[in-house]
Amino acid sequence: MAATPASASVDSLDQDPAFALHRGGKIEIRSTVQVRDADDLSLAYTPGVARVCSAIADNPALADDYTWASRVIAVVSDGTAVLGLGDIGPAAAMPVMEGKALLFKEFANVDAVPICLDCTDVDALVETVVRLAPSFGGINLEDISAPRCFEVEERLRGLLDIPVFHDDQHGTAIVALAALQNAARVTGRSLGDLRAVVAGAGASGVAVTRILLEAGIGDIAVADSKGMIYDGRDGLNPVKQALARDTNRAGHTGSTEEALVGADLFLGLSGSTVSEEAIAAMAADSIVFALSNPTPEVHPDVAAKHAAVVATGRSDFPNQINNVLAFPGVFRGALDVRASTITENMKVAAAAALADVVGDDVSPTYIIPSPFDERVAPAVIAAVAAQAVADGVARV
Amino acid sequence: MAATPASASVDSLDQDPAFALHRGGKIEIRSTVQVRDADDLSLAYTPGVARVCSAIADNPALADDYTWASRVIAVVSDGTAVLGLGDIGPAAAMPVMEGKALLFKEFANVDAVPICLDCTDVDALVETVVRLAPSFGGINLEDISAPRCFEVEERLRGLLDIPVFHDDQHGTAIVALAALQNAARVTGRSLGDLRAVVAGAGASGVAVTRILLEAGIGDIAVADSKGMIYDGRDGLNPVKQALARDTNRAGHTGSTEEALVGADLFLGLSGSTVSEEAIAAMAADSIVFALSNPTPEVHPDVAAKHAAVVATGRSDFPNQINNVLAFPGVFRGALDVRASTITENMKVAAAAALADVVGDDVSPTYIIPSPFDERVAPAVIAAVAAQAVADGVARV
Repeated sequence: MAATPASASVDSLDQDPAFALHRGGKIEIRSTVQVRDADDLSLAYTPGVARVCSAIADNPALADDYTWASRVIAVVSDGTAVLGLGDIGPAAAMPVMEGKALLFKEFANVDAVPICLDCTDVDALVETVVRLAPSFGGINLEDISAPRCFEVEERLRGLLDIPVFHDDQHGTAIVALAALQNAARVTGRSLGDLRAVVAGAGASGVAVTRILLEAGIGDIAVADSKGMIYDGRDGLNPVKQALARDTNRAGHTGSTEEALVGADLFLGLSGSTVSEEAIAAMAADSIVFALSNPTPEVHPDVAAKHAAVVATGRSDFPNQINNVLAFPGVFRGALDVRASTITENMKVAAAAALADVVGDDVSPTYIIPSPFDERVAPAVIAAVAAQAVADGVARV
Repeated sequence: MAATPASASVDSLDQDPAFALHRGGKIEIRSTVQVRDADDLSLAYTPGVARVCSAIADNPALADDYTWASRVIAVVSDGTAVLGLGDIGPAAAMPVMEGKALLFKEFANVDAVPICLDCTDVDALVETVVRLAPSFGGINLEDISAPRCFEVEERLRGLLDIPVFHDDQHGTAIVALAALQNAARVTGRSLGDLRAVVAGAGASGVAVTRILLEAGIGDIAVADSKGMIYDGRDGLNPVKQALARDTNRAGHTGSTEEALVGADLFLGLSGSTVSEEAIAAMAADSIVFALSNPTPEVHPDVAAKHAAVVATGRSDFPNQINNVLAFPGVFRGALDVRASTITENMKVAAAAALADVVGDDVSPTYIIPSPFDERVAPAVIAAVAAQAVADGVARV
């Protein structure tokens, strides 16, 4: 993408409909009660509000009933890994976080506040979110670069008793798993049959790999920019060392393309490219999820010449793997039962619910519902809430 | 106030209309753009949003035009000095901060997010707000106990290039100054004629004293819980040492009541009490602002037996000194011109505008407009914005 000249005027930028839509921002605060006269004021503010504050001071659980804190989440980023743009900083990350808040509201009536933080140190990020936590019922982490994102999320999950969910990891993982369940079904396989190669060991690559292991995939090998990750490879960070231990049963040590020979599933989450020859060398009836955005690892039309099922991250091709299918319903479901956390089971349940929306209409070009399918959010909400109750993490 | 038993059920609490009104909170997030289909999604979120992010990364000033950050403020508290309730902590402070956000929206269409922080150390508070700053166009500090509130505000004003305003200090100061201007007028005095005694050296007492000095009051002496503050008194913190240097020209060293003999103005911001005898011993046509809430320092009916003008913080007596007359318009005016700070002049201009709303209708029982007078917010907004331009702190 060409850089925007600093001299570009707002009027000329607004000729791009994306800019015109963003003018003034995409969300606002609205009152849910009226303040028409002194009586209203004396209830919503002093002196009436003091009685509500005192009651919460005496019984902290009442904050869930009498404030918005239990129903609002923070969408927190440090702006270090924004879309494909990289480390553009907190101010430039705001349109994405505001967009996320917009989608939370539109798709599942979740109130969300975008919080772009001017710090990138893991300790600082964790400390800041902990300090903010009394104001929120959940934390959606977003666009924090790997491997810091893993430690930030893990530590916050340990420190807080509200849901903490890094959407780049788990939103993608949930939707990819749902799509893969239907892709396996449409090609007559089970997940246990699949030999998979994942390109990308960032936030989404690691999380997709983990949820596929959880879901019982047959074998899976992961590549980063230096090639396949295997036990004993030099210079692996702790997250990749753990991946090396848990994956790559066949012991691939070369390139992604070498590992793809005979593989059933390619899952691209890397921003890299894969050749047509490599796709052609996969097993018969292969499955290709080329999810990098805006440029898939392999063009979907090219992939479709060799693969039985092709998915991308783009809305202009069939089978779009879009996080918005997951994150609004996941948080709505968790908040509805005041879940203290989002368990692995809750993520897997969300994926199963998403896959079930497609149901018997499944086909090679319809393995995942549209974000605008009105059945999606209710299905995810119900599955997540029920699983929270089953897992004993619900508080109502 | 009696403590609420921890076993109190929500249903029984809701018999109190203040609780019923607070059920579920008082504010929500709303979308300002629609997401009806894939085209909308591709503009409000990926891929369109990436162009907006890139443009801001290249030219940070564009964040003001294309995000909500420049029009949303944070209402930040640590819950240490909530109303008259004291240190009740961040969760129990939320109804007040949410109420503040509600009033910002209702009275001046300012979007405000309540942020209750789980830390009380000055360094931690300053550091946290600095980290949050990219997400907001202004910071309203609230209910942070003295003397920490002074240092927190001063440091943040030095570190940030957005308005930082501790409402307990400056909101009260602006409204009190406005009311005092009209009280002086109605009793045929100028501010320079007045000899004043302020009871209370917390956030509001200090700020009211400072704005009265700025406005040219004749003489002013301040008392804390240990009596009058004078140069050389033992154990004064730095804020009170500065007050001692700048006030108490007459050298009072005793009690508030001793200092009140012959005084023109009593300003109570203390939660303490003042006897009828002390009020009776003031100068003829005295002015009594007994602003503690819910219990004024002296009952207004008692004060009115001796004083020419009486004001309180209560809505059920004439002349209510209510911060809501100031803070919504102050921030709206500052945000409208993208002011980098709120200057002393801007506060004084807000007070003058408020006093002018009363105009020639001024009387002993009408020295300050009602919060529901629709002329208030426009007058304050215009005055603050114009003064920001005059002071060279406006950015549009």
